[in-house]
Amino acid sequence: MNNFNFYSPTYFAFGKGRENEAGKLVKRFGGSKVLIHYGGGSIIKSGLLDRVKVSLHNEGVAYIELGGVVPNPRSGLVYEGIELCRKEQVDFVLAVGGGSAIDSAKAIAIGAPYEGDFWDFFKGKRVDKALPVGTILTLSAAGSEGSANSVITHEDGMLKRGSGSELMRPVFSILNPELTCSLPAFQTACGATDMMAHVFERYFTNTKNVEITDRLCEAVLKTVIAETPKALANPNDYEARANIMWAGMVAHNDICGVGREQDWSTHQMEHELSALYDVAHGAGLAVMFPAWMKYVMRQDVLRFAQFAVRVWGCEMDFHHPEKTALEGIHRLEHFYTSIGMPIRFSQLGAKAEDIPTLINTLRIGTGTIGFFVKLTADDVKNIYELAV
Amino acid sequence: MNNFNFYSPTYFAFGKGRENEAGKLVKRFGGSKVLIHYGGGSIIKSGLLDRVKVSLHNEGVAYIELGGVVPNPRSGLVYEGIELCRKEQVDFVLAVGGGSAIDSAKAIAIGAPYEGDFWDFFKGKRVDKALPVGTILTLSAAGSEGSANSVITHEDGMLKRGSGSELMRPVFSILNPELTCSLPAFQTACGATDMMAHVFERYFTNTKNVEITDRLCEAVLKTVIAETPKALANPNDYEARANIMWAGMVAHNDICGVGREQDWSTHQMEHELSALYDVAHGAGLAVMFPAWMKYVMRQDVLRFAQFAVRVWGCEMDFHHPEKTALEGIHRLEHFYTSIGMPIRFSQLGAKAEDIPTLINTLRIGTGTIGFFVKLTADDVKNIYELAV
Repeated sequence: MNNFNFYSPTYFAFGKGRENEAGKLVKRFGGSKVLIHYGGGSIIKSGLLDRVKVSLHNEGVAYIELGGVVPNPRSGLVYEGIELCRKEQVDFVLAVGGGSAIDSAKAIAIGAPYEGDFWDFFKGKRVDKALPVGTILTLSAAGSEGSANSVITHEDGMLKRGSGSELMRPVFSILNPELTCSLPAFQTACGATDMMAHVFERYFTNTKNVEITDRLCEAVLKTVIAETPKALANPNDYEARANIMWAGMVAHNDICGVGREQDWSTHQMEHELSALYDVAHGAGLAVMFPAWMKYVMRQDVLRFAQFAVRVWGCEMDFHHPEKTALEGIHRLEHFYTSIGMPIRFSQLGAKAEDIPTLINTLRIGTGTIGFFVKLTADDVKNIYELAV
Repeated sequence: MNNFNFYSPTYFAFGKGRENEAGKLVKRFGGSKVLIHYGGGSIIKSGLLDRVKVSLHNEGVAYIELGGVVPNPRSGLVYEGIELCRKEQVDFVLAVGGGSAIDSAKAIAIGAPYEGDFWDFFKGKRVDKALPVGTILTLSAAGSEGSANSVITHEDGMLKRGSGSELMRPVFSILNPELTCSLPAFQTACGATDMMAHVFERYFTNTKNVEITDRLCEAVLKTVIAETPKALANPNDYEARANIMWAGMVAHNDICGVGREQDWSTHQMEHELSALYDVAHGAGLAVMFPAWMKYVMRQDVLRFAQFAVRVWGCEMDFHHPEKTALEGIHRLEHFYTSIGMPIRFSQLGAKAEDIPTLINTLRIGTGTIGFFVKLTADDVKNIYELAV
């Protein structure tokens, strides 16, 4: 097990009706003037935005608002939010929405107190100051409600990049599974795929003997695999929604990743797909993960066999472990298909002839991406081709 | 799933050599004058105490010290620590040791800024102020390094009682598995038993459909069951010690308990045993848990069958689920025996004739303890008798 730090100081308020505590929580964590940051009109139509405003008002917390976050959130709105925070002397950013609204809020929170361009932090600069961020989650997927990360697409070149800092962890997150019951099936399935991907990036590692983290990863995967079909069959199944929602947090606050080398190459490959075609992140991951797995499984056949046996309940073929390993990957593809996810480029609207462009924007050059197998540009080309 | 709050803001520094960061961490979390609180001479002999002092000194942090914490820590030393903190204007309590040192440090930390008797908090009074606590863990067991709880035995009547408050969570905990390699086999096994018990108190619940928490519980149990025999066979197995150490934290910071009713009656019954006979807490739990399980399993046979199948790998007997349930309990007893734990009163030095005394100090009266099954005094008598 590698040395590690684990610090997840977010206060989670989970369950029915908890959004009505937003005002109290903002106050508890020091906010007096809030930027409410969100996406489209669904939180307006549902009445959620009004409930949040009432809750803030009841606690004497002032607010302004900025909507318009899109999936794969863009730099333009971040710049706008930063300006607004400075002009209005906002001291707290409250995201209401899914991972996109939260990631955009995090970028605003680190950009507002910084004199330079917030994009510096997405090029690797260390964050040393940020406004506190709170979240009210409406979509179980990205895990951004408990993570120290943000992913933003810069409109100049459509570069999709991530940034991470302890200062970006939300100080509180309100998770009410009821708010996810109205999600369409496709978004529900994309969310499940996204959280499974967060576990995969941590599960497939060269670090040996991290049994506790392996087991926690498997716990999250088995939960998502069991509960997602229930939520698809009955969107109002509160219990399924609740299990999925909490699993999404556990999948990405890094309790499933400590003590080990993580990979993250598949996320990088997918980011190029979703930046170029503006496809849903979860859908892109469903296409890329099986391809990556098939390409790298020989790096550690027994780890993939463990995945097949423990997560999918495959019977171990002790004579041919690679058959078991491959069966696990096939089960994953079958699961994706069963929940309505694509598993091929064509289902995404992606094209084989764009592969050179995808590789080009990844900017691997003579370097590599990922850690489980360090992938060269040639490897990435092969993996994209496996996904066609 | 029930509504819940989850807040685990402890900073964990895990791995080899991390105790040398004690000074930096105390400073980061606002300490300028520290009470170092510990048990016996082992941390002096091993050189650990000196390393900690050097680390504090290097950061310009002043310190005083108070040793002498005993297993099942006592009120007398807590009163002494509180006096010392007030007199010396200490602003940070640093526990170096296992759960006893940490629990004692927590009690001092809530008692020092309180004008009344600290024992009030162990009689149910709400904590509203505390000195920050940091820990350097030397024994994987109690999970106090990540928990919001403390258990103290009051010497007036030998009453063993618990108190809980968010303000008692350590602000940081340093977990170096190397520090546990010198532990005797018996203490290692007691520690494993203690962390398993923390999971059991949460796992056996009447709350339905908390799949994610069930799975996380099972992950911790399977890890402890797999790794403890390795640490006993080879005390210097760093990887086994590391998995056990982190599992002990995960078992008790409540990530395994959220969203569900918890039980805790077995801990109460055990507290009376360890208060009366001063036996190791883990050993007492190994005696009490199988007895409790046998007594209550009919409350939810399928939950006990799930425990048997998922945790112990038993084959489900679909015609006779109660046989599978019972087999899981027998496997647990067999495991305890295999790691050198007692499973009967006589092995503890406890006596059947003391059962009325044990029940008397529990002070159940006409009430009940626990939640999975609400146990009356008669039930408790039956369970103690099953353990004889």
